[in-house]
Amino acid sequence: MTGAALIGVLDYAAVAIFALTGALAASRSQLDIVGFIFVAALTATGGGTLRDIILDRVPLWVSDPAILAVATVAAVVVFLFAHRLESRYRALEWLDAVALAIAVAAGVGVALAAGMGWPVVLVMGMVTGCMGGLMRDVVCNEVPLVLKQGELYVTCAFAGALVAVGLLALGAAGWIALTACAGVTLVLRAGSLALG
Amino acid sequence: MTGAALIGVLDYAAVAIFALTGALAASRSQLDIVGFIFVAALTATGGGTLRDIILDRVPLWVSDPAILAVATVAAVVVFLFAHRLESRYRALEWLDAVALAIAVAAGVGVALAAGMGWPVVLVMGMVTGCMGGLMRDVVCNEVPLVLKQGELYVTCAFAGALVAVGLLALGAAGWIALTACAGVTLVLRAGSLALG
Amino acid sequence: MTGAALIGVLDYAAVAIFALTGALAASRSQLDIVGFIFVAALTATGGGTLRDIILDRVPLWVSDPAILAVATVAAVVVFLFAHRLESRYRALEWLDAVALAIAVAAGVGVALAAGMGWPVVLVMGMVTGCMGGLMRDVVCNEVPLVLKQGELYVTCAFAGALVAVGLLALGAAGWIALTACAGVTLVLRAGSLALG
Repeated sequence: MTGAALIGVLDYAAVAIFALTGALAASRSQLDIVGFIFVAALTATGGGTLRDIILDRVPLWVSDPAILAVATVAAVVVFLFAHRLESRYRALEWLDAVALAIAVAAGVGVALAAGMGWPVVLVMGMVTGCMGGLMRDVVCNEVPLVLKQGELYVTCAFAGALVAVGLLALGAAGWIALTACAGVTLVLRAGSLALG
Repeated sequence: MTGAALIGVLDYAAVAIFALTGALAASRSQLDIVGFIFVAALTATGGGTLRDIILDRVPLWVSDPAILAVATVAAVVVFLFAHRLESRYRALEWLDAVALAIAVAAGVGVALAAGMGWPVVLVMGMVTGCMGGLMRDVVCNEVPLVLKQGELYVTCAFAGALVAVGLLALGAAGWIALTACAGVTLVLRAGSLALG
Repeated sequence: MTGAALIGVLDYAAVAIFALTGALAASRSQLDIVGFIFVAALTATGGGTLRDIILDRVPLWVSDPAILAVATVAAVVVFLFAHRLESRYRALEWLDAVALAIAVAAGVGVALAAGMGWPVVLVMGMVTGCMGGLMRDVVCNEVPLVLKQGELYVTCAFAGALVAVGLLALGAAGWIALTACAGVTLVLRAGSLALG
């Protein structure tokens, strides 16, 4: 598997995981199947769409609608098996940490490709990683998880993006910076989950 | 009356009806007159504005501010007569079904005119029909009606847009597909209201 | 100090004040330091960003990231001294009236520079002044202050923008219209605070 193919697989994986968390929130709000798909797609694509609108790009799911299919399948799976997934919510949180790491690195990469300066790169990493989950919780009228004290959700995204910006300033190659970004985000978020 | 003129009248009618539902939500939240106008305009234009931002178009009310006037008049009417309209909330729900049908067809039509593929056309029909109401309920801190179980609100929008996409795939003319889209959305939503 | 420099200072002052109100909301929601910065930046830039997205412009903070630094500093100050600032909430409300006046005038000025007609100019004044605060309260799950009855928040923004539009229609110079806009917004909001 080439590097580009690997990145594609990771992107779809992040979409699927975010969609699962969205569908679980829809389950808690007792929505119907289309509501599941709606919140799942919003969670999976919300952060990247906001990033693309601000940077005046075409949102990814407009040019690659397969992303919508992935989110829909994830929503249907939760609709059919929500009672089993809820007891595995803890497992899902760990998967969500992986998705967060991928999304932050994707946001940083897109902002860099658009020629943005480091403050905007930082913000775009956080926006891509966190705004989908924020929209999910606002729509479902829950207290936003990404802002809750003790979760350190946005903090992990910020730290990961900061590492990428720092490494680039030191002359590191792009792929090293993005890999380190994802790694730091993942380790910090996992640590936050492990330590409670 | 020509077809284009009829469509124009229907568009303004949908704006006015969505604005009425927004102003009634403002009434429940005990806002002042400018708050009424604010929520009414947000409800009436929110879905179409989001669609246009994603498709990188100028929002309709920027090029045709008469839409803002229609929403404002609707808000003032509710401000003056809210006590009478609330007892007619049931009647308003039926009007809202008509507005939803028009908005979904409008969203599908705009996405088709922009050359989008069918998954994006589907999403734009749902976004145009449902996001204004979602913004209304998020701003007024109510549980979003469009996502409530049993309302089937998004489901009706989805089904209507799906019919349009299906007919187009079968080679139907654009106006037939859009009329069928509005018709199916209206009938399903009316059925959902009638059956409770 | 030249006029342009004065306007620059006023813009940064408005960003800092809005960021302070955002950070105080984060304090009430018991977020962590990054949550403080997040809500502060959202409050400070949300209205202008929405305006720029609708008008298809690059948001100000993308081309001038110093705005993010100002919001961050304001958030850190509140994080360190929130207990003292809360007892001075009343003083902050008066500062917020100043920020509102600046932001409404800025929104009106940007819409005029983009060649918009008066209805869109009115809306952009209100959007720039009020949507940041609305996003703050939606994200922190509070009842939106800008829509609360008796606050007249949106009303003050509307009146200020209306005065600018009226003066321009009467042939006044741009800087007179914008100064009057800010003055009227400030006086009305201050009156609303003093009387109620």
